[in-house]
Amino acid sequence: HTDSSPRPTKVQELSVYELNERDRGSPAYLRLSQKQENSLGDLVPFSNKVYSGDLQKRLGITSGLCILIQHVPEKKGDRYEAIYSFYFGDYGHISVQGPYLTYEDTHLAVTGGSGVFEGVYGQVKLQQLIFPFKLFYTFYLKGIPDLPAELLTKPVPPSPTVEPSPAAKAAEPHASIPNFTN
Amino acid sequence: HTDSSPRPTKVQELSVYELNERDRGSPAYLRLSQKQENSLGDLVPFSNKVYSGDLQKRLGITSGLCILIQHVPEKKGDRYEAIYSFYFGDYGHISVQGPYLTYEDTHLAVTGGSGVFEGVYGQVKLQQLIFPFKLFYTFYLKGIPDLPAELLTKPVPPSPTVEPSPAAKAAEPHASIPNFTN
Amino acid sequence: HTDSSPRPTKVQELSVYELNERDRGSPAYLRLSQKQENSLGDLVPFSNKVYSGDLQKRLGITSGLCILIQHVPEKKGDRYEAIYSFYFGDYGHISVQGPYLTYEDTHLAVTGGSGVFEGVYGQVKLQQLIFPFKLFYTFYLKGIPDLPAELLTKPVPPSPTVEPSPAAKAAEPHASIPNFTN
Repeated sequence: HTDSSPRPTKVQELSVYELNERDRGSPAYLRLSQKQENSLGDLVPFSNKVYSGDLQKRLGITSGLCILIQHVPEKKGDRYEAIYSFYFGDYGHISVQGPYLTYEDTHLAVTGGSGVFEGVYGQVKLQQLIFPFKLFYTFYLKGIPDLPAELLTKPVPPSPTVEPSPAAKAAEPHASIPNFTN
Repeated sequence: HTDSSPRPTKVQELSVYELNERDRGSPAYLRLSQKQENSLGDLVPFSNKVYSGDLQKRLGITSGLCILIQHVPEKKGDRYEAIYSFYFGDYGHISVQGPYLTYEDTHLAVTGGSGVFEGVYGQVKLQQLIFPFKLFYTFYLKGIPDLPAELLTKPVPPSPTVEPSPAAKAAEPHASIPNFTN
Repeated sequence: HTDSSPRPTKVQELSVYELNERDRGSPAYLRLSQKQENSLGDLVPFSNKVYSGDLQKRLGITSGLCILIQHVPEKKGDRYEAIYSFYFGDYGHISVQGPYLTYEDTHLAVTGGSGVFEGVYGQVKLQQLIFPFKLFYTFYLKGIPDLPAELLTKPVPPSPTVEPSPAAKAAEPHASIPNFTN
């Protein structure tokens, strides 16, 4: 907490997968608009699992809120404002905010973090592989010291068929980070 | 994404108008407090149109959430916690958080951004011209390279009677930015 | 707004107490999951009072939203995603986002600020003293000029029995900051 050295400006790339394994009761689609079609007024709290980019380790969870902004009929999809965090066990967390479009890749802002991510800034690319169950993220992070090697693994190229290793899915000790968030 | 040059600390002023033209179904006032008077518990998702400060170009939209914090009878108004983003088409977005008072100008925090706003920080002044349909914002932005000239136009002085140019309102190609957010 | 000097990287520690004195109708627990047990889907807007770390001055309020992420039976508690701001009267505000666990201390990200907190980054430690009525926070703030002395008082060691001074509780002029947020 007492570090006062210059803030690093180099970019560190961190890749993770976010998977909805349908065991967390997520998402909770709150149809508060009371309309049949997805409409402004609907809110979607959610929490999914997060795996390392090489799919060999369970890291933690996402948690946050998607705000339905508009249904986009010509794209057969929806625009959301997304406000959420990625949790990495004892390493800390990263908070993000920005656009989530169900029909297109987007970039969100990195708004801050804790632990090894204290003071982080930058942006994150969101790629949807299977709506809304499988997503791939590439963080472009600045402002922080070198990240632990076990977070910076070479990612499996994103595709709809990727799956975490059985050991990672079971969150076995050698296939998860210290006190992985669950 | 690989830039590692020093982070700019000079201030860039960016002015925009946020207009509710009553064609987006916004705001969605969710009276979840179940009280007759605006009360803690009420939530207000919203999305309005954003125009350049000179009102000659359509830029995009706002999108986000206002959280009713308290009704302030002596001011005949309300305090909200506002969490939202400004979208600027292909240029990216800016996320903000802070106070929205229906009876008084405020300053919100700039929490991050994407695209040309990647790594942005600073604050934004919110001036209400006609509640809740016409607002003027002055961003004081740091941490980013020089913004495109078409964003940094000289603003029309804010007043309740300002209107976007007909071409901007129609989002004609010469009166909108590349892939303006809609 | 025109300062372009280098951004400070030294750490300033700011301690505050957040107290729920049960006079603001807070929190508003919105059981939108429609389940008996706290579940994903529930939302909790809230606003409490903020006092200086020495409990001699009323500073302002908190305001924001807790998003119930999961009930944690083995801890007899809950995990929330918390998105809120701390208001300090004429001095401005600090926005934060991160984990709020009802059974354990956490660190949240500082995502931005206004006024004397313009450009702030860092993290904040949340310590719960009496759930959910009495909390102690230690901010580790970077990126801003030296804070006013009246904010940087030596804190009373956190314990469940601490109370604000009667003058601070009454927000008397000598026991509150300029235009304290209420």
